[in-house]
Amino acid sequence: MTMTTMAREIAEQPAAIARTIEALRPLRATIRELAASRRTVLFVARGSSDNASIYGRYLLEVHAGHPAGLAAPSVGTHYGARLDLTDAVVVSVSQSGETQEIVEAQAWAADCGARTIAVTNDAGSALSKAADLALVTDAGRELAVPATKSYTTQLAAMAVLASALAPDPHALDAELDRAPGEVERLITERDGVDEAVEALAATPEILVSGRGIAFGTALETALKLEETCLRPVRGLSYADLRHGPIAVVDAEHVAVLVAAQDGPMVGGMTELADDLRERGVGATIGIGGDPAFAAACDVVAGGPRLTELVAPLALVVPAQLIVEALARRLGLDPDAPRGLSKVTQTDPQDGGTR
Amino acid sequence: MTMTTMAREIAEQPAAIARTIEALRPLRATIRELAASRRTVLFVARGSSDNASIYGRYLLEVHAGHPAGLAAPSVGTHYGARLDLTDAVVVSVSQSGETQEIVEAQAWAADCGARTIAVTNDAGSALSKAADLALVTDAGRELAVPATKSYTTQLAAMAVLASALAPDPHALDAELDRAPGEVERLITERDGVDEAVEALAATPEILVSGRGIAFGTALETALKLEETCLRPVRGLSYADLRHGPIAVVDAEHVAVLVAAQDGPMVGGMTELADDLRERGVGATIGIGGDPAFAAACDVVAGGPRLTELVAPLALVVPAQLIVEALARRLGLDPDAPRGLSKVTQTDPQDGGTR
Repeated sequence: MTMTTMAREIAEQPAAIARTIEALRPLRATIRELAASRRTVLFVARGSSDNASIYGRYLLEVHAGHPAGLAAPSVGTHYGARLDLTDAVVVSVSQSGETQEIVEAQAWAADCGARTIAVTNDAGSALSKAADLALVTDAGRELAVPATKSYTTQLAAMAVLASALAPDPHALDAELDRAPGEVERLITERDGVDEAVEALAATPEILVSGRGIAFGTALETALKLEETCLRPVRGLSYADLRHGPIAVVDAEHVAVLVAAQDGPMVGGMTELADDLRERGVGATIGIGGDPAFAAACDVVAGGPRLTELVAPLALVVPAQLIVEALARRLGLDPDAPRGLSKVTQTDPQDGGTR
Repeated sequence: MTMTTMAREIAEQPAAIARTIEALRPLRATIRELAASRRTVLFVARGSSDNASIYGRYLLEVHAGHPAGLAAPSVGTHYGARLDLTDAVVVSVSQSGETQEIVEAQAWAADCGARTIAVTNDAGSALSKAADLALVTDAGRELAVPATKSYTTQLAAMAVLASALAPDPHALDAELDRAPGEVERLITERDGVDEAVEALAATPEILVSGRGIAFGTALETALKLEETCLRPVRGLSYADLRHGPIAVVDAEHVAVLVAAQDGPMVGGMTELADDLRERGVGATIGIGGDPAFAAACDVVAGGPRLTELVAPLALVVPAQLIVEALARRLGLDPDAPRGLSKVTQTDPQDGGTR
């Protein structure tokens, strides 16, 4: 069997993450200087980059104690509002660095007084060139349409960014250095991947949930499943799921639950797995978690042995392996899903998405 | 036919919205004073209240030029992070004012230096009593589980809040005063509601999309359809839909698109309707919009004759009518969907959700 491009790019992640951490860590002093006396960090992104930004937001608030949030790009690009952003650093995230909406939103934020950081995979991109500081991930060129190594290297950039603004910039260093090895191990072991693929292939309805630091991982898992395997998938936070949509769960549903091995969320995710089972869900697939979580799920894909704050860099890897194998299992080409192009534009008039 | 409680509460909205505007408008000077010299407004909410907050966020930024965002409650309640919120007003939104997670998040925000505003439907609730300022909606007691009048009166509170912080607090007054009459007209005319119900009853897959000021309306439409009609529904922003999930759309899908009659978004939503038709979507149901939008959709439920900034107060009403009728059409009780209780708790240990 020939390896798909997506599988090859998944396998390139340990080296890509290690290179990115090494390239960006020396910029921590510059990041601190740029953010000095600015109280807020706002992320501007779409798609997978938005999911990476959600990790960045939680990590900045939880680990660095630095208020952060997600900007609504259309406030600038479509409504032309003038906001006082003189207390903000705006971090724009785009693999290509060429998504027109994000380039425009960054220019608007700078006009409103924000300092700007671009996280892209291309130092020569419009976004990187226009930013006050470019954090360039070193994923190498990504050819498969589903983002894998460009996403996990964005997560590495988020970890460097948050560590730069934390009281102790070195607090996460040792754990971050272990991340590439854990990604490698997960790719080699493929623990639970085939069982998860079989469970997912059997169902028309998939929902994915996670909470807190791992919430972005859940949304990225949902997005990848949907765009690569062409299944309708709902990605919901634990809290949003409990506030209504849990009423819909039945035997036709497979729930994918994502959790780190430690931290304040794995207990609640375990209770959610129990609750879904009581409600008669078709099956629950756990990714990561601890032994109690694994016991509450029907199928488990093992996660990284990394603390929650760093876990997302590797926790998405079992999901990537599942998505790549499920696409093949369904007779689809994981490298080129229907209807998507590599440089994503939000509005058709911006570029070549039609 | 006996009227359902949900239908009765939908019909109570014109009076409830008018009462709420009248009750809250005199507080604008107090709101301005409380927010004076604070640069950011952060919303804390879940479920329908979260959807109301999304409207509040856009309206504050677009109309008042005041930076706003959505807080992640778990940063305080589960991670116990300490953030500098001395530049923020935190607005906590909960119909009951008793959702434990939101009460805790508000207390945490106050500890971090935020000034606090509670938007609830009960002046005696824990959330209202603990806040620096309580904006109490006057929806009257809501008995049906799906929020209708409590949601639209929250939107009225958001409009008063944003107008209080706008350069001209009176700029939206005339249009806001027209909102109850438009809600009344939509309830009386029920334009397109039956056709939309038939289209939705025929499909297993529903997605809902909107953008900008009307994005919260799209999410609320998705949530109501899901929790009341027990259909899996995906609510996606226009931008997120284009960035991947649009690949999944096929003849099994019905797309519900929500737009105001004017503003910078209705053009893009019309293009989206055209695009979905080209991709072979089963049907598109438009709610609101302008004549070009109506022409691009297969079924249209007429929306309010209100400018985009105020339209959400009435734009959700056709969606409510559709949901109530669809639930009955499917043999369900719209007043008491499976698995949900009225005072929603995020975590089971907080209350009676199990």
